Amino acid sequence: MTHQTTTIDLIYQPVREQLVQVEEQLRNLAFQSHPSIVGLLGQVASSPGKRLRPAVTLLASRFHEGDGELPIIMAAAVELLHVASLVHDDTVDNAAVRRGAATISSMWGDDVAVLLGDYVFASSAVMVCDTNNVHVIRRFAETIKELSTGELMEQFGAYKWNHTLEEYKERIYNKTASLFRTAAESGAILSGAPDETVRALDSYGYNVGMAFQIVDDILDYDGTEEEVGKPVGHDLLEGTLTLPGMLLIERFPEDNPIINMFQGKDVEDNRRRALDMAHASGVIDDAYDVARQFTNTAAAAIQNLPDTSEREALLELASYVVERRR
Amino acid sequence: MTHQTTTIDLIYQPVREQLVQVEEQLRNLAFQSHPSIVGLLGQVASSPGKRLRPAVTLLASRFHEGDGELPIIMAAAVELLHVASLVHDDTVDNAAVRRGAATISSMWGDDVAVLLGDYVFASSAVMVCDTNNVHVIRRFAETIKELSTGELMEQFGAYKWNHTLEEYKERIYNKTASLFRTAAESGAILSGAPDETVRALDSYGYNVGMAFQIVDDILDYDGTEEEVGKPVGHDLLEGTLTLPGMLLIERFPEDNPIINMFQGKDVEDNRRRALDMAHASGVIDDAYDVARQFTNTAAAAIQNLPDTSEREALLELASYVVERRR
Repeated sequence: MTHQTTTIDLIYQPVREQLVQVEEQLRNLAFQSHPSIVGLLGQVASSPGKRLRPAVTLLASRFHEGDGELPIIMAAAVELLHVASLVHDDTVDNAAVRRGAATISSMWGDDVAVLLGDYVFASSAVMVCDTNNVHVIRRFAETIKELSTGELMEQFGAYKWNHTLEEYKERIYNKTASLFRTAAESGAILSGAPDETVRALDSYGYNVGMAFQIVDDILDYDGTEEEVGKPVGHDLLEGTLTLPGMLLIERFPEDNPIINMFQGKDVEDNRRRALDMAHASGVIDDAYDVARQFTNTAAAAIQNLPDTSEREALLELASYVVERRR
Repeated sequence: MTHQTTTIDLIYQPVREQLVQVEEQLRNLAFQSHPSIVGLLGQVASSPGKRLRPAVTLLASRFHEGDGELPIIMAAAVELLHVASLVHDDTVDNAAVRRGAATISSMWGDDVAVLLGDYVFASSAVMVCDTNNVHVIRRFAETIKELSTGELMEQFGAYKWNHTLEEYKERIYNKTASLFRTAAESGAILSGAPDETVRALDSYGYNVGMAFQIVDDILDYDGTEEEVGKPVGHDLLEGTLTLPGMLLIERFPEDNPIINMFQGKDVEDNRRRALDMAHASGVIDDAYDVARQFTNTAAAAIQNLPDTSEREALLELASYVVERRR
């Protein structure tokens, strides 16, 4: 726990002031909105997320002397996009709780959650227009496409147990890594950094994002409800097969508890068996190895950037993504 | 019926070729998408809408010699945005049928409809980036904000019977007129037309859009299920008070069937009484007068534009919006 606090401090330290301005941008959004939704937006925009993605944008903007305002706008837009996607994901997943707080859909119903999510998506798109950079704006809109593609792949792939690793990677790229990539790349672009730096940070963002989602998927097997902020084994109950489950099926194709539960047999019993087997068989460790390969590649991507506190923070962030328990 | 066909022909005639290209853009979207959603997108993009909004964009682009490609892209983006909003609206309204066809949410469930709507919204935003015009892109994103604001106002105002006319106008601006306005304004801007022309067409779009929604609201009282493509009196059942109902409550504040049904009393009986009273009392005609005021203003807004077949078409479109029965 102490170790994690230290890591988080190291990550945010170089951009602490800018992150305060990002929070301000997010709060301002509520005041520019129709009275009937100000309260809802306050609840959404001030939700106690880790603000990892905006930190990535701000840190990525520090490898070139550019306009300091644009990365702040971009960081706020990136976080808003993330928040919007959470509102819709929680609606689709019927999630009652996120990080210990009631979700919008559980408090206000799915209809309000759908429309509020649209509003926040659109607000993020309006915000990114303030960068005045059509390349960045387009990449941002493509990211929203990719996010929903990833979620649709999850929906249509539900209760299937024969996903290939390539399909899994494509899904988590769309669902998660796309936005990390956009966060890093756009920070670099808006700082006016040369192409080589942009490419390095783009690759960093992609790889950190892939690791982030793999660890999320692992924590659904490995965490406690207290750590994860939602019930453990939730993905399996929704029919979502992720890396640990794929490895478990590969290793134990006969009488596999996940295949059994996806076929509707003794769901609760098989869910518990799947979680136990994941620990006992070592597939959790194997899945962590895959995540670590991605963060190693992320670190390698930025090894030629100047050795600054910002690069140090990005390296810490990559480690944190794998070490975190929530 | 014959009259309407002729009107529609007059409206589309000057931009018939460009509308074919718009359809092609919409079809292409499906092919650029992930295999798992190609089928869904085909269903959505080829739905037999009237393509009124793209026609407005194309016609509005003809008052200045500009790049002919940009308005086509814009028209396709405008229609996609409209399609996306229908997918989410049908989800929120629990609508089973639109224009006689099953809705995405009724066929594939709300979860898929939410995510597919997001995907189509984002696709429209990516498409509009091809205009390379940040002003137009921003206005487009603001329109998505306004659409969802309008729908949220409807949600939070449900089962209230004391809406002011100002609140109603604000709601239908957000819900409908905003997109008509954007359709017209962006067509003009992308043709490179001078400010005065842009302002004229902006005003035209706003006023036609307001009339369009008022007539939609009237048809929910006045049309037949066959004409409207969904059950008549649907708005009242959802607790949505629109202009005819507001006029009815203003005129008959005592023992009003709408107030009764919003209080949950004899819903089916009071719904029928409300529809009958709307006809007998003349509030339908009064509501049409309000719609006609808007289309008159729309016509006046473009009276100083050159007397071309495009201006004629826009005037016909304004008439059609009030005369249509679906």
